[in-house]
Amino acid sequence: MEKKFRITTEYDGTAYHGWQRQKSDRSIQSEIEKALTVMTRQRVTLAASGRTDAGVHALGQVAHFTCDTTLLPEAFFLGLNSLLPDDIVIKSCEAVAATFHARYDAKRKTYRYRILNRKVPSALDHRYVWHIRKKLLIENMQAATEHVIGKHDFKAFEGAGSPRSSTVRNIFRAELSKKKDGCLNFEIEGDGFLRYMVRNIVGTLVEVGRGKITPQEFKAILESRDRSRAGATAPPQGLFLVSVAYG
Amino acid sequence: MEKKFRITTEYDGTAYHGWQRQKSDRSIQSEIEKALTVMTRQRVTLAASGRTDAGVHALGQVAHFTCDTTLLPEAFFLGLNSLLPDDIVIKSCEAVAATFHARYDAKRKTYRYRILNRKVPSALDHRYVWHIRKKLLIENMQAATEHVIGKHDFKAFEGAGSPRSSTVRNIFRAELSKKKDGCLNFEIEGDGFLRYMVRNIVGTLVEVGRGKITPQEFKAILESRDRSRAGATAPPQGLFLVSVAYG
Repeated sequence: MEKKFRITTEYDGTAYHGWQRQKSDRSIQSEIEKALTVMTRQRVTLAASGRTDAGVHALGQVAHFTCDTTLLPEAFFLGLNSLLPDDIVIKSCEAVAATFHARYDAKRKTYRYRILNRKVPSALDHRYVWHIRKKLLIENMQAATEHVIGKHDFKAFEGAGSPRSSTVRNIFRAELSKKKDGCLNFEIEGDGFLRYMVRNIVGTLVEVGRGKITPQEFKAILESRDRSRAGATAPPQGLFLVSVAYG
Repeated sequence: MEKKFRITTEYDGTAYHGWQRQKSDRSIQSEIEKALTVMTRQRVTLAASGRTDAGVHALGQVAHFTCDTTLLPEAFFLGLNSLLPDDIVIKSCEAVAATFHARYDAKRKTYRYRILNRKVPSALDHRYVWHIRKKLLIENMQAATEHVIGKHDFKAFEGAGSPRSSTVRNIFRAELSKKKDGCLNFEIEGDGFLRYMVRNIVGTLVEVGRGKITPQEFKAILESRDRSRAGATAPPQGLFLVSVAYG
């Protein structure tokens, strides 16, 4: 009998060409699908809450799959974790209603971006931070961060060649704080995100931190809807999809 | 003019065959020596506070080198960090007296061993923990930990084929605590450590945690000086050389 399952997964994106299955490159999706095929002897297709790009990590990516099986969710949890490489972990697996859809039902997503702002880089954390040597103006970055909260057209922060029709998104929360581990954490929660949106916001916030633009100019860039005015895209390894919330 | 320098280094041991230079395998020592040779156009030899084994990490390994140079410590700090791979970082470099020796002058060393004790493994931390699924008896492990404090003959916890003459070491501090990140951290500070000593203590503590031996039996194993009675060597990736103290 056809059953639907939801998995929550944590992964280290370093060795992968992003979430989405590719012809030749390794992807998170294809690794999990391969393991599901081993377990079910069926071709299983995963649908995620959304893609993550090459080198981006996840603490709580959500995906669903359907298959004809008598296996219980716990069996998928244990079986997948024993089959998957160490850098992909299934945190939980549950049976869900046939109507559930990981992408269309997602109500909120939270992302985190970590900046290590000090002279000395980190040998143990280099896969998980953007290391910026020069001291950033944190208060200016925090003032700029305020401007992304609320409903805005984020076209200025959208990646080139993105196919979406509407570029309006609602941001419920955005904050930048200094952590005990020495990192500046940028956290943002919204009803959805455009391609490269978080990394483009962070790249532009870092321009504020470097004193190249003011918080007020950051606001003007957002309002301009002009991608060419925003900063460079921040590197992928500092970005984490923290969680996806439903219903 | 010949000058002596001390460096403090952090490294991720995952990709290396330990600290010590090897004929064929990559080692931390040879990576740093290669970078020093590029900077000074001399063959430079590093002497560390001690080796770390394959797969073991360091937050504060100390080493010294001598060379004929006009370069200042800051130049070594910057130059080495730009030449070295991302998983080896020079945290500091200072000029030291000609009499300084990283190994012979070391007074205390601190090691940390991290155990992730929960059902779900960690995709982001798998290089830096020993994942143990079954719940360990933490209080028993803490009671056993008490027995390693003080001056003891640690022959029961020495790796096979070790060349040292004396197996007596003085342990100033040893504690096991549960951290917010979900890890059990075992920290141990002493005047020196035998080969595999920390990993053999941890392997035996985990036997206590699994209820296979009592804290009292742990004490008896230590006192027996008999390696065959101790537990298996804990895997390398949970171990960190935290710091080395001098003078």
